[in-house]
Amino acid sequence: MDNKTGTPVTVIGLGLMGQALAGAFLRAGHLTTVWNRTASKADQLVADGARLAPTVGAALKAGSVAVICVTDYHAVRELLGASELDGTTLVNLTSGDSAQAREAARWAEERGARYVDGAIMAVPPAVGTAEATILHSGPEADFEAHRSTLDALGTVTYLGADHGLASLYDVAGLAMMWSVLNAWLQGTALLRTAGVDAAAYAPFARQIAAGVAEWLPGYAEQIDSGSFPAEVSALETDVRAMAHLIEESEAVGVNAELPRLIKAIADRSVAAGHGGEQYPVLIEEFGTPHGN
Amino acid sequence: MDNKTGTPVTVIGLGLMGQALAGAFLRAGHLTTVWNRTASKADQLVADGARLAPTVGAALKAGSVAVICVTDYHAVRELLGASELDGTTLVNLTSGDSAQAREAARWAEERGARYVDGAIMAVPPAVGTAEATILHSGPEADFEAHRSTLDALGTVTYLGADHGLASLYDVAGLAMMWSVLNAWLQGTALLRTAGVDAAAYAPFARQIAAGVAEWLPGYAEQIDSGSFPAEVSALETDVRAMAHLIEESEAVGVNAELPRLIKAIADRSVAAGHGGEQYPVLIEEFGTPHGN
Repeated sequence: MDNKTGTPVTVIGLGLMGQALAGAFLRAGHLTTVWNRTASKADQLVADGARLAPTVGAALKAGSVAVICVTDYHAVRELLGASELDGTTLVNLTSGDSAQAREAARWAEERGARYVDGAIMAVPPAVGTAEATILHSGPEADFEAHRSTLDALGTVTYLGADHGLASLYDVAGLAMMWSVLNAWLQGTALLRTAGVDAAAYAPFARQIAAGVAEWLPGYAEQIDSGSFPAEVSALETDVRAMAHLIEESEAVGVNAELPRLIKAIADRSVAAGHGGEQYPVLIEEFGTPHGN
Repeated sequence: MDNKTGTPVTVIGLGLMGQALAGAFLRAGHLTTVWNRTASKADQLVADGARLAPTVGAALKAGSVAVICVTDYHAVRELLGASELDGTTLVNLTSGDSAQAREAARWAEERGARYVDGAIMAVPPAVGTAEATILHSGPEADFEAHRSTLDALGTVTYLGADHGLASLYDVAGLAMMWSVLNAWLQGTALLRTAGVDAAAYAPFARQIAAGVAEWLPGYAEQIDSGSFPAEVSALETDVRAMAHLIEESEAVGVNAELPRLIKAIADRSVAAGHGGEQYPVLIEEFGTPHGN
């Protein structure tokens, strides 16, 4: 027996992430129904107050909103395909790309469901804390109807009506995460050749990353206006400094792949006649397939 | 005639950056002597109160510290080679790599000079403001003796006794700058395929970059200890998300070079047996030449 009194919510899929989602709903006081192909994955959640539904269909009926988080979008359709979806609100937090999200939205809406796509920018232990950013996209009314329930999962963000946005923001954010980490590793590798500890270098890297992050809204204006005057620095000047980065990396014997890619992309833009413009002009290179 | 009464300082080399350095010293009230191969470059500075020395030797004698900023390290020796350096303190802000800095230090010290190397992390218009970070490395006493004078140039930082440190921190910081910008451009390109303006995406990118920057000191502890337990996430999990980034970039028709490099480096580490460890284990890949 449970003693939960909040909004009834359903969680389908109890991998590590699904268990974390259900746990966060339970801790927030929601009446939480769960379902998983292997029912034993629900044992701890049931001990914590969740209800285990006997079928997917029963699970979907139990909640005013159903959060699904499974292996991939193929598994979403396989699990839900035989159930009545008419009137259900699905919030699909399964990992996938923007095309899959848009296709799943069409599929679900054809079956009478309301559909919100989402992406979890967090590891399971962070779910339910402010550190977990959960991105959502789809019809705003369908998101807003359940926002207060979804708030239990972390810092819940609505991006727009296009169901593909959550996936796109997710991978864009990951690209930023890995890029900051890789640049920090490049710098750490360079400094270690001079006997500098990673701990001594990290505050400097942190300051540069945070400082450059502040430039982005201003640089975005150049992209949206399509005009890239060299107010601060011209790309051809940057390219000379990129050559220094490559030379230094090679001279001290660390990996130079990242420096070489940085320069290769800028070189192409200079060759295309943009040497006198400012860095954001590289959006033309980033927006165009190369070697795909 | 000038009316400057501060510390006498010399600036050798009056390109755009040299002019900015001399201007910052003048504005701070220092008695500023300048020299340049083409004397006319000093005209505006002389009008603003600088003294133009007739020879490099006379310029070096006029200041208690001489800042030099010329094309490259070869030009430094060419310009200073015929002059008396005994007792001079040189602060060399010319762009170069760490090996050149260490070699220039030996060269100058053999001639009786005190030598501090430096790197300017700023464009000329920022010099003299807090936004201009000026990195210094070399004997601490020689830097500290002139720190209050050098403060006129911006946010002046001392890194350590190894003369190569300023160059290494400089290129490491540039790698971070370009990496944050490139990751933002990658994300902007992805989001533009869904009709999202650069201005709408930029605050998200800024937040991720600044947030990840906060992780660096903690991650640095793993590198310094040489132990990479997967406290937050394992590299093999990251690699699966990297594949999503590549697939999404290719599917929407933007450049996937940066995503592919991110995954290629991580793939090598997984192949080397580190899939169960955490991201900073990639220091082994970044510290090793690849395709150099």
